[in-house]
Amino acid sequence: MENKFQFAKKLIREAGDFIKSNMVNELEIEEKTRFDDLVTNLDKETQELLIANIKQVYPDDHILAEENGVHHNITDGNVWVLDPIDGTVNFVAQATHFAVMIAYYENGIGQFGLIYDVMTDLLYSGGGQFDVCVNDKKLSPFKDRPLNRFLVGCNANMFASNYHGLHDMIEQTLGVRVYGGAGISMAAVMAGQLMAYFSYIQPWDYAAAKVMGEKLGYVLLTIEGKEPDFTHRQKVMFVPKAKLSTIQTYLSKT
Amino acid sequence: MENKFQFAKKLIREAGDFIKSNMVNELEIEEKTRFDDLVTNLDKETQELLIANIKQVYPDDHILAEENGVHHNITDGNVWVLDPIDGTVNFVAQATHFAVMIAYYENGIGQFGLIYDVMTDLLYSGGGQFDVCVNDKKLSPFKDRPLNRFLVGCNANMFASNYHGLHDMIEQTLGVRVYGGAGISMAAVMAGQLMAYFSYIQPWDYAAAKVMGEKLGYVLLTIEGKEPDFTHRQKVMFVPKAKLSTIQTYLSKT
Repeated sequence: MENKFQFAKKLIREAGDFIKSNMVNELEIEEKTRFDDLVTNLDKETQELLIANIKQVYPDDHILAEENGVHHNITDGNVWVLDPIDGTVNFVAQATHFAVMIAYYENGIGQFGLIYDVMTDLLYSGGGQFDVCVNDKKLSPFKDRPLNRFLVGCNANMFASNYHGLHDMIEQTLGVRVYGGAGISMAAVMAGQLMAYFSYIQPWDYAAAKVMGEKLGYVLLTIEGKEPDFTHRQKVMFVPKAKLSTIQTYLSKT
Repeated sequence: MENKFQFAKKLIREAGDFIKSNMVNELEIEEKTRFDDLVTNLDKETQELLIANIKQVYPDDHILAEENGVHHNITDGNVWVLDPIDGTVNFVAQATHFAVMIAYYENGIGQFGLIYDVMTDLLYSGGGQFDVCVNDKKLSPFKDRPLNRFLVGCNANMFASNYHGLHDMIEQTLGVRVYGGAGISMAAVMAGQLMAYFSYIQPWDYAAAKVMGEKLGYVLLTIEGKEPDFTHRQKVMFVPKAKLSTIQTYLSKT
């Protein structure tokens, strides 16, 4: 497992370098389900680069990835979960605030995860048997304090519509932040900058943070409090275990 | 004016260094108007440092500043507008995403402005007769593109309540971002990462961005389209002149 983890750390930085050196060129931008659901040629090319490297070293491993319908079942064998560019809208509109994400699972059990914030060159990695670090610095586990001394990351529409009482809960905190990428938002949670993160996301958006977060005192659950299914887009929360019951008293509203 | 501008650039970095070297100590946090309106000992001490330095070199100049009620009239003589820590909530909860801001006005006319994003060490400075730069790199003026290729920065509650049709307007864009500090948000506008910024803020929150932004094709106006008054908290927008009429078709709703 140590070898696979070191391989993944090297690979994710190569993917980041690939994006950085190619983002100076004109992007080909396509709309997927609607005008604000974007994919670029670099999302696809980066995913191909990741898959080609994994398949060369681990030919029998499987892939669950964002683009091109490569969706192996998470519970079946050795599965790499890949998000080549998480926060594509930020990537297109800001040329920053996006991440590459990799997670590695065996028969549904997370072994390690990685979130690489490309433009700030911060690599969050670990989980399973590995300490969670940002670059070479070990991250501290969640430190509790009162709700009104925390900020919360949230999907803007879930906040605005008071989905399951989220707005009411956030009113008890120092406020909401909307960063627009699951990867950088959940990295901010693990770095202690946000108490929690609530959004409507896909398996490749949460797979890495889930395995790292469990090592630091966080859980990744659906808003209803269930394990996410790793098959389709779900409304999920990435929250400190120590705050789960407090948060759930608000979320019980429908 | 060149001397004053160079003095201000040196001073704001000194203030940032002062904050950075003192933020490792326990902060004394006080609530001002409510539990999420915070001030720390470092806000006050940094403001004192700024004022002491200005008064030593320019003893006849005046001060309009956030803390301690130092509120000289912007239209009267040489006025330094100071925000020692903009984004105090981020400062307290995240230890990042805050800024020091300085603006210099003569008889109500902006001469230059500075926003220093302390933790990323990015200094936005210029306006009036000076080019607007981030550190030593000159910023490009606003580049137009369709509304649906931009992100927008907004106060979370103004977004959630669809204040003056803001939510409807943002629905036509790639989405909203909430960063929680006027300084870092308006710096993101000038860096081309956000099309515009909408918030409910004080003179020391907008004075620096206003004078820099005018040089780059932006205007700082109240939501009603009037000049801000520099005397009290107002709902304002920092928007590209080229997009003003488009934006105002949405804001005309009440």
